[in-house]
Amino acid sequence: MAEKIVHAIQDDYSDDYSWCYGCGKLNEAGLKLRTGWDGEKTMTVYQPRKEHMAIPGFVYGGLIGSLVDCHGTGSAALALHRKNGHEPGDGVEPPRFVTASLHVDYIRPTPQGTPLTAVGTVEEIHPKKWKVITEVYAKGVCCVKGEVIAAVMPETFTK
Amino acid sequence: MAEKIVHAIQDDYSDDYSWCYGCGKLNEAGLKLRTGWDGEKTMTVYQPRKEHMAIPGFVYGGLIGSLVDCHGTGSAALALHRKNGHEPGDGVEPPRFVTASLHVDYIRPTPQGTPLTAVGTVEEIHPKKWKVITEVYAKGVCCVKGEVIAAVMPETFTK
Repeated sequence: MAEKIVHAIQDDYSDDYSWCYGCGKLNEAGLKLRTGWDGEKTMTVYQPRKEHMAIPGFVYGGLIGSLVDCHGTGSAALALHRKNGHEPGDGVEPPRFVTASLHVDYIRPTPQGTPLTAVGTVEEIHPKKWKVITEVYAKGVCCVKGEVIAAVMPETFTK
Repeated sequence: MAEKIVHAIQDDYSDDYSWCYGCGKLNEAGLKLRTGWDGEKTMTVYQPRKEHMAIPGFVYGGLIGSLVDCHGTGSAALALHRKNGHEPGDGVEPPRFVTASLHVDYIRPTPQGTPLTAVGTVEEIHPKKWKVITEVYAKGVCCVKGEVIAAVMPETFTK
């Protein structure tokens, strides 16, 4: 499993679409989640802040939901970009997705103080709608499973 | 619809369980979500911060997921507390729930700059497991629907 994302899809979003609290590179207060390929899987690594707790010692579920969410839209963007013949870092602006639905199953409490690794499997439902199945690991143990249905951002979204 | 929560269930959690990033009254960096009864429905009102955006003008879905999450566990706690003969503010410590699963359907983009109101319907699945169906409104329009399965926090959670 790659430890670090070299080329993240979020690095290549246009500035207009880089303000997301979860994954926008321009949102200084945000989480700045970054999602890249790890072979045929997608990956996002994030170490929650100290304040991101449910109770002391365990990560807040809503924060993990945010990780699953942005990992999902980022993974869908990676997959459609690859289908179109592109990889992050090749200079071509990738598609931008929005979340249609988010599902998170909390399998066991997620410990604080260690990076979380989200690993995604992407499946095309139709060209503008993708499903991303995600497992979130802490110290090699899967604590959370998630599913995102991501849709290509409609032009009307910004109007 | 009540505009303000007078007695929130989170006000009555013991200090040990008041550190949640979403709804802990002691987590200074957190969202401090507060959930109370509005007749037979439950309600949480929260105005997202400026940085909680997906793109400028629209609220970040992961933040809404956090709202649905804590509104869900808070609503379950309210319902079990009422079943046990108690109401927030009566001086009895309520049960504390954890999220077993979270589902969020993003119906339409959620505008920024206005409070969001989560309205919940609570159903007992069994005495330690409750389902909370939530609708999130912005300016009276339902933008998001969610479902949380909440379980009474097991004693092992903190050991």
